[in-house]
Amino acid sequence: MSAPALGVCYYPEHWPESIWAEDARRMKDLGLSFVRIGEFAWSRLEPKRGDLRFDWLERSIDTLHGEGLKVVLGTPTATPPKWLVDEMPDMLPVDENGHRRAFGSRRHYDFSHEGYREECARIVTALAERFGNHPGIAAWQTDNEYDCHGTALSYSPVALAAYRAWLKEKYGTIDALNTAWGNVFWSMEVDDFDRIELPIATIADANPPARMDFRRFASDQVVSFNRLQADIIRKHSPGRDVIHNFMGRTTTFDHFDVGADIDVTSWDAYPLGFLDDRSDRDDEWKRRFMRAGDPDFQAFHHDIYRATSNGRWWIMEQQPGPVNWASHNPTPREGQVRLWTWEAFAHGAEVVSYFRWRQAPFAQEQMHAGLLRPDSGEAPAFPEAKKVAEEIAVLDIGAESGQSAAAIVFDYPSSWAWEIEDQGAEFDYFRVVFDTYCAMRRLGLSIDIVPASVSDLSGYGLVAVPALFAFTENLTQALAAFEGEVLLGPRSGAKTKDFAIPESLPPDLPADMLDMKVARVESLRGDVPVPTGAGAFRFWREFVEVGPKAETELASADGEPALVRQGNLVYMAGWGDEALLEATVKAMAERAGLSTVDLPDGVRLRRRGRLVFAVNYGNERFDLTTLGLGGTAILGSADLAPSGVAILEGTR
Amino acid sequence: MSAPALGVCYYPEHWPESIWAEDARRMKDLGLSFVRIGEFAWSRLEPKRGDLRFDWLERSIDTLHGEGLKVVLGTPTATPPKWLVDEMPDMLPVDENGHRRAFGSRRHYDFSHEGYREECARIVTALAERFGNHPGIAAWQTDNEYDCHGTALSYSPVALAAYRAWLKEKYGTIDALNTAWGNVFWSMEVDDFDRIELPIATIADANPPARMDFRRFASDQVVSFNRLQADIIRKHSPGRDVIHNFMGRTTTFDHFDVGADIDVTSWDAYPLGFLDDRSDRDDEWKRRFMRAGDPDFQAFHHDIYRATSNGRWWIMEQQPGPVNWASHNPTPREGQVRLWTWEAFAHGAEVVSYFRWRQAPFAQEQMHAGLLRPDSGEAPAFPEAKKVAEEIAVLDIGAESGQSAAAIVFDYPSSWAWEIEDQGAEFDYFRVVFDTYCAMRRLGLSIDIVPASVSDLSGYGLVAVPALFAFTENLTQALAAFEGEVLLGPRSGAKTKDFAIPESLPPDLPADMLDMKVARVESLRGDVPVPTGAGAFRFWREFVEVGPKAETELASADGEPALVRQGNLVYMAGWGDEALLEATVKAMAERAGLSTVDLPDGVRLRRRGRLVFAVNYGNERFDLTTLGLGGTAILGSADLAPSGVAILEGTR
Amino acid sequence: MSAPALGVCYYPEHWPESIWAEDARRMKDLGLSFVRIGEFAWSRLEPKRGDLRFDWLERSIDTLHGEGLKVVLGTPTATPPKWLVDEMPDMLPVDENGHRRAFGSRRHYDFSHEGYREECARIVTALAERFGNHPGIAAWQTDNEYDCHGTALSYSPVALAAYRAWLKEKYGTIDALNTAWGNVFWSMEVDDFDRIELPIATIADANPPARMDFRRFASDQVVSFNRLQADIIRKHSPGRDVIHNFMGRTTTFDHFDVGADIDVTSWDAYPLGFLDDRSDRDDEWKRRFMRAGDPDFQAFHHDIYRATSNGRWWIMEQQPGPVNWASHNPTPREGQVRLWTWEAFAHGAEVVSYFRWRQAPFAQEQMHAGLLRPDSGEAPAFPEAKKVAEEIAVLDIGAESGQSAAAIVFDYPSSWAWEIEDQGAEFDYFRVVFDTYCAMRRLGLSIDIVPASVSDLSGYGLVAVPALFAFTENLTQALAAFEGEVLLGPRSGAKTKDFAIPESLPPDLPADMLDMKVARVESLRGDVPVPTGAGAFRFWREFVEVGPKAETELASADGEPALVRQGNLVYMAGWGDEALLEATVKAMAERAGLSTVDLPDGVRLRRRGRLVFAVNYGNERFDLTTLGLGGTAILGSADLAPSGVAILEGTR
Ligand SMILES: [Zn+2]
Ligand SMILES: [Zn+2]
Ligand SMILES: [Zn+2]
Repeated sequence: MSAPALGVCYYPEHWPESIWAEDARRMKDLGLSFVRIGEFAWSRLEPKRGDLRFDWLERSIDTLHGEGLKVVLGTPTATPPKWLVDEMPDMLPVDENGHRRAFGSRRHYDFSHEGYREECARIVTALAERFGNHPGIAAWQTDNEYDCHGTALSYSPVALAAYRAWLKEKYGTIDALNTAWGNVFWSMEVDDFDRIELPIATIADANPPARMDFRRFASDQVVSFNRLQADIIRKHSPGRDVIHNFMGRTTTFDHFDVGADIDVTSWDAYPLGFLDDRSDRDDEWKRRFMRAGDPDFQAFHHDIYRATSNGRWWIMEQQPGPVNWASHNPTPREGQVRLWTWEAFAHGAEVVSYFRWRQAPFAQEQMHAGLLRPDSGEAPAFPEAKKVAEEIAVLDIGAESGQSAAAIVFDYPSSWAWEIEDQGAEFDYFRVVFDTYCAMRRLGLSIDIVPASVSDLSGYGLVAVPALFAFTENLTQALAAFEGEVLLGPRSGAKTKDFAIPESLPPDLPADMLDMKVARVESLRGDVPVPTGAGAFRFWREFVEVGPKAETELASADGEPALVRQGNLVYMAGWGDEALLEATVKAMAERAGLSTVDLPDGVRLRRRGRLVFAVNYGNERFDLTTLGLGGTAILGSADLAPSGVAILEGTR
Repeated sequence: MSAPALGVCYYPEHWPESIWAEDARRMKDLGLSFVRIGEFAWSRLEPKRGDLRFDWLERSIDTLHGEGLKVVLGTPTATPPKWLVDEMPDMLPVDENGHRRAFGSRRHYDFSHEGYREECARIVTALAERFGNHPGIAAWQTDNEYDCHGTALSYSPVALAAYRAWLKEKYGTIDALNTAWGNVFWSMEVDDFDRIELPIATIADANPPARMDFRRFASDQVVSFNRLQADIIRKHSPGRDVIHNFMGRTTTFDHFDVGADIDVTSWDAYPLGFLDDRSDRDDEWKRRFMRAGDPDFQAFHHDIYRATSNGRWWIMEQQPGPVNWASHNPTPREGQVRLWTWEAFAHGAEVVSYFRWRQAPFAQEQMHAGLLRPDSGEAPAFPEAKKVAEEIAVLDIGAESGQSAAAIVFDYPSSWAWEIEDQGAEFDYFRVVFDTYCAMRRLGLSIDIVPASVSDLSGYGLVAVPALFAFTENLTQALAAFEGEVLLGPRSGAKTKDFAIPESLPPDLPADMLDMKVARVESLRGDVPVPTGAGAFRFWREFVEVGPKAETELASADGEPALVRQGNLVYMAGWGDEALLEATVKAMAERAGLSTVDLPDGVRLRRRGRLVFAVNYGNERFDLTTLGLGGTAILGSADLAPSGVAILEGTR
Repeated sequence: MSAPALGVCYYPEHWPESIWAEDARRMKDLGLSFVRIGEFAWSRLEPKRGDLRFDWLERSIDTLHGEGLKVVLGTPTATPPKWLVDEMPDMLPVDENGHRRAFGSRRHYDFSHEGYREECARIVTALAERFGNHPGIAAWQTDNEYDCHGTALSYSPVALAAYRAWLKEKYGTIDALNTAWGNVFWSMEVDDFDRIELPIATIADANPPARMDFRRFASDQVVSFNRLQADIIRKHSPGRDVIHNFMGRTTTFDHFDVGADIDVTSWDAYPLGFLDDRSDRDDEWKRRFMRAGDPDFQAFHHDIYRATSNGRWWIMEQQPGPVNWASHNPTPREGQVRLWTWEAFAHGAEVVSYFRWRQAPFAQEQMHAGLLRPDSGEAPAFPEAKKVAEEIAVLDIGAESGQSAAAIVFDYPSSWAWEIEDQGAEFDYFRVVFDTYCAMRRLGLSIDIVPASVSDLSGYGLVAVPALFAFTENLTQALAAFEGEVLLGPRSGAKTKDFAIPESLPPDLPADMLDMKVARVESLRGDVPVPTGAGAFRFWREFVEVGPKAETELASADGEPALVRQGNLVYMAGWGDEALLEATVKAMAERAGLSTVDLPDGVRLRRRGRLVFAVNYGNERFDLTTLGLGGTAILGSADLAPSGVAILEGTR
């Protein structure tokens, strides 16, 4: 890993060519290293079929390259032009009401449309052939933000045909499918794959395993769509990184699967927009962190996306000011843009790239801030980026992030499973995992995210596997071999891979690993917590039978087992609230020999190699020395102001 | 009426045949008498057109019969198989947005589809011919849960054609329809029945009488659909009861009309699911009774469904544990399954049948509890059912329920009328009637439900007719002849049968019965009650002119008549809150010579013949002796614990 | 302007001809002068194509005319009959989900359908030829309530074709459109007008300028639809006023544009319905004014609609009692119908016409009160109307309303702009303007509404231009020449006419008028106000840079400029709450030499020529002498009871 660097997203096609050189110069002066361009420019690259116009793009790349800037070139496939859509209107996706979606914004294509895939291959090939070896091209981005605006799922005829083919491939015989799905229930049995329908518009809920397969299929379509482009780029542009740029709280496709086909995962960090429109926090919390963002939300994504491409990750779009798409779009507190940037580096980001260079005065995103205002004046993020650029130029933060003390298994299929069968209105996989993550973070732990396919957990002191719908063989073996503490539950191993209840009841682990059964479960109103000795369950609790090899470590006030331990495995029989999760994790960390601290809501720590980074999302100063960490600050100081960043060296 | 019995719903097709015998033995040992089977098994009974495979069903019936269990055989028409749907895809219903619904769950058929009706006749005939005289068959169930998931209304071309024919049959001439509907308004007049459209997708509201006729038509379609099956069964299976199994809070079709064509009404009692997802109670109440269910909701349905088939009724599906379909699915409090069972017997049920024998580990309802867990272990309901079985085996609770002291008119068309014309967001027929019912229940009264077509009310001390949209001639005459107390209003007789305001204004009764006019009405925000001397109106109030033959018995604080009396008729000019309804009912009961008590929220009484049953839904013990009822307990004791049941003999 | 008069809406086709004469006599006796008829009677005027039956209408007009009543004859085009719809079913509009709407209520036509326009021309010509010179016809109403039930927007094929033609007319070349819309963004460029699509069903938001043009187009369709009828009527019925009847809080088309083609604007004043279903007030306020209506809502519309046809306006439909269409429909407080009537006269209405004469006992509006009950008895509004009739018969309130002290610019396109780009969930143009209006009203100011095209503001002391999305050249020049105080902001001049951010940033005014820039904006949660020295911003605030020619008059607590002044122009950099708006307006009024008072919530004043009208919407008496206005009451008294009206002469 090289030293951290900064970048920016830039749209030369939006501005007169006369200002390109000046823009490049200002970027360079600001201390930027990378510039992403091109990802929405198809109508300029090919205004009519076959009328390829790449010269302007080359001039733009040359201009940037001339200033020593490294270009990330995006394939323009997220915005097919109108002439192409008119040629094959059935490339437009169909929503869950059966309505065909329309041209006029972006991401208006169906992942299952073969004709569109061919068009993507054609334009990507043309671009890769032309620019693959251009010295200014440092990396490629495939498409942009798969699934953004809910586009990974389409209910079109082409999706249905592809789904049937996918099922045939998976099951071989229709009898195997009928059995796996339990189609005897409600006479859902069919005698041919061509009788399978999309799992929408049913009178009552469609069959969970059918829905689960549809979700798996849809995820696979995204993966193969991306792979098509990645393969072409690798062929024509050797030595360049292939990147895809993910969004926040997006679980509709398996990012590990896409990540396996690319070199670098990037994502879009919009802390204020996300807090407003995709956080489960209550109003008081949202008000409090309105101008800072949720203290854990970005970090959680950093840790996920560090995992999806084996450690290599960027922020491709970093929020620089108010966005245009949340219900409320406040301005960040002074210093937060710098904080967010440093926090990304703390979690191992190679590059943080701001979105965007200059605010566009026209079209859909005219209210989205940039580093520059529409009149080219400096927006508030500009000096903050400059400050970071100066700081990273002089600081050595080391090459490697290193393994964290704790790990959490994050599994995309589990999010589909519990969306399909929430069994309680509040049950949400992302939320359950995030709650566990936050509890660890409040205790100062640094965390790695690992996939459910993980086969080796050695090196970790503590591993949590919350709400994993079905164990993989890999994971079961990894847990069996693991010597650190393991926190399971709720709902971990609640299903077989076919979305059925395991024969010997959950969790689906052998009794010599965990001798207990979840005999039944219940979902609960938010105003009816189930108290335990330390905190409570909320929304969800399980009634378990504890076998002779296991023991009840904590009971609910009504006498039911709340925590069951067998060796190093602990099962939490419900959805722990903050207090219960924190107490449980703290005790387990202690047992695992991990030291913890008690952090206030807004302050967070992250160890990167030999350094500990501290950030303050809160509204009050915080004195880090009260944590007793020791060490000396190589950036900032132990007296951490709101929006402050400190890097400590030599902490315990 | 024979002694009460228990039953269970069973799906032999879900389990290996090797365990059928053991299942039957355990059912018998548990003390069950009836087993419902077959109602969703079409794809196993006829996997391809004409390929009838009834042998497995016969073996299953034989197995159950061999243990002395009585089989209720369901016709499988709620789940037509895919091959049939593919033969005639226009059998699928169309929703109110004009979208065709899809195969993949259940109830996916249009009641107006003639082709599907023929298919139903074919399969029912085949089943009835094969099993009609099998000694193990005690009864038949037609289809299952008409209208569940909102399926009684379809807006399809076949529905439109049938609706036009129905209108032509009803009105004869288009002029008669134009007049009855008031089509001169907004130029809605048409010159032919073929110009009539379905009452959807209109710019402003469709015409109320048109909507009302559509609802009547849709109800009649359910009735004739059911009658088709009932007639076939009666022909081929003499001496067996024909049952249909209704749902809770379902008013989309007239259950009295369906009930007239069958021998026994059954219904599905899911107290916890219903409290969560179809109760008007506030959050505090829902929290309080979360594990017990609403104390009046089940009883109300018991009393309705005792009426729909002239006194003969069952519970076909009794909730045994958490269900899978409400927003929150808690586990019942220990003892509640027994309580619910006994409460049904208190209200005259012949059979209480649990849903289901063993929790299915697959498909849509895998999170729905049964008497057995998926691993065949006993679920918590199992010992409770066993206890009831033992109790009913030794107790003689008498043959007849007898007539109750009070009656309430419940009328399905009124629910359609006020859904069509609520005139205030909260106005809901079910809720208005239920409020009246609850007031009577808190006073300890036992209640019969009677239809609006009732022609004789003698024997009752008190009759309430809340919110009846239009009087029938029968009822007007019955009220004129009746000597007990009658409570009318609000909105009783507010319309003619053609959904117009009566010429001499509501209530549509002759002045020598009730000399008053509802000059105007108002609907009110929930936070603006209209106080009276005793309680208040909420949501709805009426301004009445009282003629010389009537008198104002209670006035609102603003001086308007609140209760108007003429002889034994009392009109309540608004929607009474708890206090007003209770005070009014109490005074009228007293006048009628009925004794009342004041019950706490969770305790309810029900007289059945010589016995009084007491149940405790509440969270505290209650001492029944404080009510001064006298008598001695033949089950339980006067010290009624939470979830307790007592049967008193010799009470006043 | 003649003396104020009363009228009523009447539907002779709803009643037997035998009672028409008696109805007319009672109208006359009540003191009514005008009767609107005919606007929904197409099916009676032409039951089959070409079968014109105008005789009954003539008899009805003759009957009314015989009593000296003046008839307003409505064209029946809001309710095309079924035979016509069946002839051309594509005349039905299509909603934003792409669903064709249906016959069965009213307003079921697409403004872009040429065939329907021809039919309208045909029936209007026939009516105008037959009745154009009838002495009983005093005026005509074209159609009724354009856009009511959201009908100004249709997404049909005919709308698309008309939209494309409209765009071609506007832009000439497709390149001009691509540039104006900023279509380079997201590759939205097209090479032909036939590639333009309707701005619906897009994956992300459609392009704001595209949406804005669609809204302009849709408004123009209403305008040309109306002009077609107005032209025909003028040709055949010289000397009669042409009226269109608008609704409340309807901003979907430009009422100034429609108003330019007619002689008199009328509107429908339903104070209680509007407070319940289209007011932004909180629950406490709605409860408090439940039976009176919002104290400013009617006045605001009176002032808007006084502007749309150059001062001539009526109320065509005045609420007389409970309506049938709001969520809650309470009865008005005694005296309010009289108050509403007088308030309209205070604002310059020529006629107040009640809706409707007699409550219809049938069809959709059977729960809508009239002056008479369905049984022809007098409803509560009847005596109130009678009282007004007697009062206006003896009072001389002068001929002219006169110019007000203050003015507010109201601009329909701005409402479309901020609906398209709210940038914060609460941002709503109507609401922002209404807040400004209410602040002025609480200070006792009388207000004129002026359009954004206004070219002369002389005579006003104070002009407010809140949230105007783009300045017109006229207005910029008018402001430059204006010597009174001007209150701008928030968001005033935030865009160019092409819906882009102005090059030199907002507000789009030259620096010699207002030397400041809105560098950035933010939208805020409702629970996070931004305090200033006097009140606070809520929902919206702007960060401005103040140039040397301007000065900061008030700062926010965080030090940002809140009010910026340059000469007589003041810019408010946010959405002021009540306190901030009131303090600002008060200070500016003082500076402009306008005297203000502090009115309680329910009391409002309105100057009309030499008179000051006072009305009391509140629930407490109010002593007007405490305001120190002086003058003597020629109606009512200074002691203003709830629902009281006073007219003061000789006030300061
Ligand atoms: Zn649709
Ligand atoms: Zn059921
Ligand atoms: Zn109207």
